[in-house]
Amino acid sequence: MSILVVGSVALDDVDTPFGQRRGALGGAAVYFGLAASYFTDVRLVGVVGEDFPDEHVELLGTRGIDLAGLQVVEGETFRWGGKYGYDFNARETTYTNLGVFANFQPQIPETFRRTANVFLANIAPQLQLSVLEQVERPAMTALDTMNYWIERTPTELRSAIESVDILLINDSETRQLAGEPVLRKAAARVLEHGLELLVVKKGEDGVVTFSREGIFAVPGLPLDSIIDPTGAGDSFAGGFLGYLAATGDRSAEGIRRATIYGSVMGSLCCEAFSTEKLADLEPQEIEERFQEYKRLTHFEYSPILLNA
Amino acid sequence: MSILVVGSVALDDVDTPFGQRRGALGGAAVYFGLAASYFTDVRLVGVVGEDFPDEHVELLGTRGIDLAGLQVVEGETFRWGGKYGYDFNARETTYTNLGVFANFQPQIPETFRRTANVFLANIAPQLQLSVLEQVERPAMTALDTMNYWIERTPTELRSAIESVDILLINDSETRQLAGEPVLRKAAARVLEHGLELLVVKKGEDGVVTFSREGIFAVPGLPLDSIIDPTGAGDSFAGGFLGYLAATGDRSAEGIRRATIYGSVMGSLCCEAFSTEKLADLEPQEIEERFQEYKRLTHFEYSPILLNA
Repeated sequence: MSILVVGSVALDDVDTPFGQRRGALGGAAVYFGLAASYFTDVRLVGVVGEDFPDEHVELLGTRGIDLAGLQVVEGETFRWGGKYGYDFNARETTYTNLGVFANFQPQIPETFRRTANVFLANIAPQLQLSVLEQVERPAMTALDTMNYWIERTPTELRSAIESVDILLINDSETRQLAGEPVLRKAAARVLEHGLELLVVKKGEDGVVTFSREGIFAVPGLPLDSIIDPTGAGDSFAGGFLGYLAATGDRSAEGIRRATIYGSVMGSLCCEAFSTEKLADLEPQEIEERFQEYKRLTHFEYSPILLNA
Repeated sequence: MSILVVGSVALDDVDTPFGQRRGALGGAAVYFGLAASYFTDVRLVGVVGEDFPDEHVELLGTRGIDLAGLQVVEGETFRWGGKYGYDFNARETTYTNLGVFANFQPQIPETFRRTANVFLANIAPQLQLSVLEQVERPAMTALDTMNYWIERTPTELRSAIESVDILLINDSETRQLAGEPVLRKAAARVLEHGLELLVVKKGEDGVVTFSREGIFAVPGLPLDSIIDPTGAGDSFAGGFLGYLAATGDRSAEGIRRATIYGSVMGSLCCEAFSTEKLADLEPQEIEERFQEYKRLTHFEYSPILLNA
């Protein structure tokens, strides 16, 4: 079944110790859409300015992403500048020019309103709520958010969280949202907002999913080469929700596999600048990376006599 | 087969948001020894002052730890003060009184010299080397170290590392030792020092082991209750090396199981102050925690048709 993503489409200026890119294709909806496109049909809703290059539109088209919901309006595309040092967990945002994204009002095209699965990337909770009002009984809804909204619009964010099935946030945001330092307790408290599933992203330290059925954790895959981690979290979401949308399998086992596919897409994303790797993968690379996670984490019990 | 541990025996003053302890049993050799004692016979070499309470000696005795190598000398026992806030990954050392540990010269008793397995806890590399000179052809040797020695005595540390089979350090120390920010590359460089195995500890984010046979990673188990993480790294080492010493199985599969048992002991250690939990476990609790790690990390592949 298809998945609808609503979120940012951006031009990124990225500096890393290994090189730089100017005006590279970026934005949460883009990373998510590209990652999810290997699993299912993707419909994108976002906004860009008239400066948005045709080549970026074409690239999204090659992955079959339906851009009927991409508004092109007068003004400049959302532009973000980021700088990484050798510690890729620490990122410096050098600037943020919201451009036309500042006045983004998601308009869900008529043809998108019955999409079975919906992902609300990190935008204002009010906008996330407005999307949910425009779609008809989706089978699965998920949202991402960030500390900014936890601090500025807690009431709206709470409404948005209570309206979806799945929440994806990072570990410090989970603690912040719950007002509880112990992650497991914080997760239990967040789940009480009527969520089916909480996905806690820990960057290069992996992912933990919490649900009433239990906890599943994937460690980070130590990569030989980390070029640009921009978009890894949204790529994770694309693999994770893309898998769930494609299979409809939200059993405990299905969620475990989805978490691995998410980790696969997030890790592949980091191996090149911008969307360069994510936009041009062979299915085999994805399956091989899945098996790499299996080798990374697999162990068997073998009886041993312990000393009392 | 038995394991010999050489390292600190301390009295700890610990403050956490959940309470405090004064003069609690601590030190790397203690945490290691208690954790390893569930797997194999432990022989301890260390030093304490005349102020070291009899009850602590008795407690180590109840776990069958051979204290023939515990020197009691005039002066004060090594005393350490630590303070934790709600973020248990950040620890503040409030003071360190080395006491009799300042002049520690490990003397390996005659009866300990043929111990099959040796763990050199975090002490000066020169002292670690002196221990290796006193033992006779051990089947397995391992050492722990810290940034202090990487910065102050790099030459001696290098000799010590080149003299052992297994190195246990944390992730930032791995990067520092290799002068390389990407963990996987740093690990490969560290392994070139003739090591069979590198164990990278990441605190509550788990553990990664690197060897010529590949990489194995365990995520952190999200705990319901974290009371006092002091000694978790040494408890990990005790479970990890205790298992390897007991089984002699350093195959890829054996190392994976050892890493789980290490994680089991490290996680159990955090659930009470000082050694309170570690000193009084039932074998069943250890096996149950092992199975909890299995449930935490297990997933199965299931074919899915990806979009090219």
